[in-house]
Amino acid sequence: MRAVRVHQYQQSPSIDQVPEPVVRGPLDVLVEVKAAGVCRTDLHIIEGQWAKLSGVTLPYTIGHENAGTVREVGPAVSTVAPGDTVILHPLVTCGLCHACRAGDDSHCENSAFPGIDTDGGMADLLLTNARAVVRLDPGLEPADVAALADAGLTAYHAVRKAVPLLPPGTHAVVIGAGGLGHIGLQSLTALTAAEVTVVDRSPEALELASRLGADHTVLSDGDQVAAVLDLTGGKGAHVVFDFVGENGTEAEGVAMTRDTGSYFVIGYGGRVDVPTIDIISREINIIGNLVGTYTDLVELMTLAARGRVTLRTRTYPLDAALDALADLDAGRIPGGRAILVP
Amino acid sequence: MRAVRVHQYQQSPSIDQVPEPVVRGPLDVLVEVKAAGVCRTDLHIIEGQWAKLSGVTLPYTIGHENAGTVREVGPAVSTVAPGDTVILHPLVTCGLCHACRAGDDSHCENSAFPGIDTDGGMADLLLTNARAVVRLDPGLEPADVAALADAGLTAYHAVRKAVPLLPPGTHAVVIGAGGLGHIGLQSLTALTAAEVTVVDRSPEALELASRLGADHTVLSDGDQVAAVLDLTGGKGAHVVFDFVGENGTEAEGVAMTRDTGSYFVIGYGGRVDVPTIDIISREINIIGNLVGTYTDLVELMTLAARGRVTLRTRTYPLDAALDALADLDAGRIPGGRAILVP
Amino acid sequence: MRAVRVHQYQQSPSIDQVPEPVVRGPLDVLVEVKAAGVCRTDLHIIEGQWAKLSGVTLPYTIGHENAGTVREVGPAVSTVAPGDTVILHPLVTCGLCHACRAGDDSHCENSAFPGIDTDGGMADLLLTNARAVVRLDPGLEPADVAALADAGLTAYHAVRKAVPLLPPGTHAVVIGAGGLGHIGLQSLTALTAAEVTVVDRSPEALELASRLGADHTVLSDGDQVAAVLDLTGGKGAHVVFDFVGENGTEAEGVAMTRDTGSYFVIGYGGRVDVPTIDIISREINIIGNLVGTYTDLVELMTLAARGRVTLRTRTYPLDAALDALADLDAGRIPGGRAILVP
Amino acid sequence: MRAVRVHQYQQSPSIDQVPEPVVRGPLDVLVEVKAAGVCRTDLHIIEGQWAKLSGVTLPYTIGHENAGTVREVGPAVSTVAPGDTVILHPLVTCGLCHACRAGDDSHCENSAFPGIDTDGGMADLLLTNARAVVRLDPGLEPADVAALADAGLTAYHAVRKAVPLLPPGTHAVVIGAGGLGHIGLQSLTALTAAEVTVVDRSPEALELASRLGADHTVLSDGDQVAAVLDLTGGKGAHVVFDFVGENGTEAEGVAMTRDTGSYFVIGYGGRVDVPTIDIISREINIIGNLVGTYTDLVELMTLAARGRVTLRTRTYPLDAALDALADLDAGRIPGGRAILVP
Repeated sequence: MRAVRVHQYQQSPSIDQVPEPVVRGPLDVLVEVKAAGVCRTDLHIIEGQWAKLSGVTLPYTIGHENAGTVREVGPAVSTVAPGDTVILHPLVTCGLCHACRAGDDSHCENSAFPGIDTDGGMADLLLTNARAVVRLDPGLEPADVAALADAGLTAYHAVRKAVPLLPPGTHAVVIGAGGLGHIGLQSLTALTAAEVTVVDRSPEALELASRLGADHTVLSDGDQVAAVLDLTGGKGAHVVFDFVGENGTEAEGVAMTRDTGSYFVIGYGGRVDVPTIDIISREINIIGNLVGTYTDLVELMTLAARGRVTLRTRTYPLDAALDALADLDAGRIPGGRAILVP
Repeated sequence: MRAVRVHQYQQSPSIDQVPEPVVRGPLDVLVEVKAAGVCRTDLHIIEGQWAKLSGVTLPYTIGHENAGTVREVGPAVSTVAPGDTVILHPLVTCGLCHACRAGDDSHCENSAFPGIDTDGGMADLLLTNARAVVRLDPGLEPADVAALADAGLTAYHAVRKAVPLLPPGTHAVVIGAGGLGHIGLQSLTALTAAEVTVVDRSPEALELASRLGADHTVLSDGDQVAAVLDLTGGKGAHVVFDFVGENGTEAEGVAMTRDTGSYFVIGYGGRVDVPTIDIISREINIIGNLVGTYTDLVELMTLAARGRVTLRTRTYPLDAALDALADLDAGRIPGGRAILVP
Repeated sequence: MRAVRVHQYQQSPSIDQVPEPVVRGPLDVLVEVKAAGVCRTDLHIIEGQWAKLSGVTLPYTIGHENAGTVREVGPAVSTVAPGDTVILHPLVTCGLCHACRAGDDSHCENSAFPGIDTDGGMADLLLTNARAVVRLDPGLEPADVAALADAGLTAYHAVRKAVPLLPPGTHAVVIGAGGLGHIGLQSLTALTAAEVTVVDRSPEALELASRLGADHTVLSDGDQVAAVLDLTGGKGAHVVFDFVGENGTEAEGVAMTRDTGSYFVIGYGGRVDVPTIDIISREINIIGNLVGTYTDLVELMTLAARGRVTLRTRTYPLDAALDALADLDAGRIPGGRAILVP
Repeated sequence: MRAVRVHQYQQSPSIDQVPEPVVRGPLDVLVEVKAAGVCRTDLHIIEGQWAKLSGVTLPYTIGHENAGTVREVGPAVSTVAPGDTVILHPLVTCGLCHACRAGDDSHCENSAFPGIDTDGGMADLLLTNARAVVRLDPGLEPADVAALADAGLTAYHAVRKAVPLLPPGTHAVVIGAGGLGHIGLQSLTALTAAEVTVVDRSPEALELASRLGADHTVLSDGDQVAAVLDLTGGKGAHVVFDFVGENGTEAEGVAMTRDTGSYFVIGYGGRVDVPTIDIISREINIIGNLVGTYTDLVELMTLAARGRVTLRTRTYPLDAALDALADLDAGRIPGGRAILVP
């Protein structure tokens, strides 16, 4: 089969012919990939930024946002059957560790992460297990939802955790109206009645945010903290979702947070650096967020099936994977997501 | 009446004769002070560290941890009567702002803070309001509980917030086994079945912590992070309560926190400085804590009445207030609290 | 001033000239009534059904859903001023009891209930206190929201409590699409992404429910339990809101509830009668609901100001109060609410 | 191997020689039973009360509270190994259904219940799966904890759910101080600082309850509701745990519940029958409780290992199983549990 494989860091991957993966374990599921999201993390992998963290042995196949059709299942798989259309949770989890037993499978102690630390989905076939597959509603196409499998799931997970903090009358700020931010925004309007302000450096991104339901938009032109304080009666927002997490948004996000409010970190690259006197005198919370659970993904697919969360996508044939990566790197897919299809 | 008043920062307060305060407002409560805690914050006030923050006009009376007997009440006060023994919540709150209405009165938008920004309780009488008074169980003496009014309340509040994070099988770390830490430890053993490790630089403080129910103690000798990781199977604690918040405990506290765990900041003076990649990849939380609500104080008094939370105290007559402040400053009241009595 | 007063049970009230109420207490607020909802409870009061429960002395003024303009305030009132437009929480609460301090003021131990146990708002003026008034958004008219003060608040309160039970993918059932049910339905679509089925005996009420956002409607024709089970894959709903609570909906509601689900009782008149073996083997919950807190009303007004909750109303001049009561009694105000205006 | 098998309802089981069960599935775990609890449910099974509900085919082996040593595991089992000492969650769950994925495995859609609907543990060997086994702390003996596997788990689960309702200052009532009640009581004192009152018909059971930490005991002599109201200032308890659920405790339990409080149903046999007006005007909750999750059992074992929950047991050799059943039936094991050992 075909597979987009990294052979050496800082060199382009190649599209190779490789042997098909084989169902061996009782819970294995072999999926014909019908859609694979192309993500900025793929560029970082190729650059070698993840080499040490993932510990993967080269060459290997990238692609960690996948949807497709089940081809074959192991003998203990009861929840999907060949022919089913599925989206894949990014992690292959064990189901037996303490985290898995508590429903917190995204912190499984024995997980694999196809596309990061083992062969991923930019290929004709992907091997995963029964704990990773979510059957798709008949109204959903793999290419429309694949990019929700990781980026969208992360945004949804953060919003889902914040729901108890956002009753009517509260204010939420979304910093960064890119791929994650748009899913975060749509999740907020679906799950809460909070007032939502979106902050971004791009007027086009803000315009799209308005169409997706933002109550206010603020251009990141240097006065964004003051603008958010103005919109919130000088007090700041109850929850600030920072989908950037670097280049100054860390301090701005904390400054936009109301006393007793919460600053949710989703993007990364920078540092949160706050005096303890501010943390206690303002009684604020700084909340980390990472991917989401299997149940989160099931819920997000429900929102997608109800039309509450949508993505703008641009498809490329698998054979044009390198074009898709190049277009993403060059900023030629604004406001949307590149998706590889067979 | 007598009152311990600051006339000039960086000079000793004096014990003056001042006019008695007078009940004027409908919810006013005038209390004969039977016990006033002497706190490190009083030393900081005298040094002038709070001058700008409090904005108080000198001279004024210090003392923000008070208990006593009601002498007189305003016409709208229905909950206490002259003769009742009470402890005072440190804040005088309005009861009408959004925070007060939601039960979160420690964030009242119109509060006064006797002893900090208005006349306090190192005096024969203190004027507060009906929203600040908690009637004491007959088994409790003002001198035994006064120091719970602020320091103890802060420690209890932090533990109370953490209860849902600490089911059986979890591990809590208490950094700093001083006055607050001991209340925090006792609150933990009263409210949870978590395993508790106490970390401190003083072997004597650790010995007392063991007697108060700590499962493990760790001397802060440079290897304290490694020691906590050892005690927690290499994973860290589910909740770390940092009652110090400076001099390196900030980074140590975060390092002692388990993935998906929470680092509770209670002490202050330093900075929390963490890369966003660590916050998200470990999905950790950093939680600010400030004083506690009226309801928290009621609950803490219940624990005190049931003998679940006790303090070691040393009483001084009000006329010896300067001696008490000097003894505290010189470290001559280890493991205990100085209390002024009439 | 004018006031609609009950002189004798089972006789029509009369519109009397009575002395104006006077601000006496420090937190008193005197309101010029601009809108007073006419409610089925008013009919029950006149019939004498509440005589024993309320213990009110005749004659007195009815009207417990009120909005208007502040005329005068007591000396301790800081949150509203003469001229402010306000809606009134139905209870006048003390602010000092344990329930009030915990933010649960609808269970105040010292409350009065104007229109039920003391003079109400079908009059030119109403005396309440500062703890009952919510300032209205400038976009809201008293006549548009008065009926949310009690009936709407009750429906909102029940839905608000259920939000944690209703993530995406869950199913909610609303039994009874009358005044409360419509507010409940709109609150559900504002606060959750749950699938909602509305059950009623009236095709017209169901049609309105569809327009207000119900995903499914079920006619109560005897097969309603089967219909709900069909819509929920044979399992029942995660939460059933019973706005009727009599004439068989009690048993039907429990039968429509999924294992581990919750049956919320809001309407009343009947009995819940369930074998304990069913309660435990199905691990279901039966949840009582009564009015709502001040904070609930603030939140509901936010939803109203954002256009997420609307009422259909028909106004009558105060002098035509008896006509309004008669029209309500005769069923001549279907799907809407009668509102008295000056 | 030996097995206690029911051949015909309403006849004594017999101890048969049967073939040993065999590991076949990838997650199977074969356990040498070292302790099997003898439970009232076993008597009900023999009487035929469960015949229809369980649908089991006779003959089969009873015993649903088991602990022992792992003999053999399937190829996908990574969490236990031969030789490990384990207690068994009563259910064998699938790990893939929605409930299992959410950590709510006690509502698994595909579970088996050894001893109820398939061969149980009153035998030399028991076949279960990896999702049911909890490794025991070295300080715990199978015979000491086996009876916690089902009865104890149920009591713990109910208390665990109630923890957020029981901060300091609240009052809990335990109706029924038998096997479950004693575990419930010990769980309450371990997990909360609530005041606890135990109600029972047996003075001996109440005496034991006092030793286990009950603050008050009330003899069920007809005045028990009045006695509980006296102990709670006329208001009733915040949470009432009814471990009986029949013969009048249902109405008494509701009457002992404070307004806004919760009545937890754990025992069964009777009916809860309450007017909807009472449910809403008192805003009370009626909460069903069934077994507990795997995570609950892990937590309960932590409490047991810390000495916070203990059982009084009396061991019988497996060959004397009929004596144990007869002694239980005749009431000759008061305040304790019969445990079969090899």
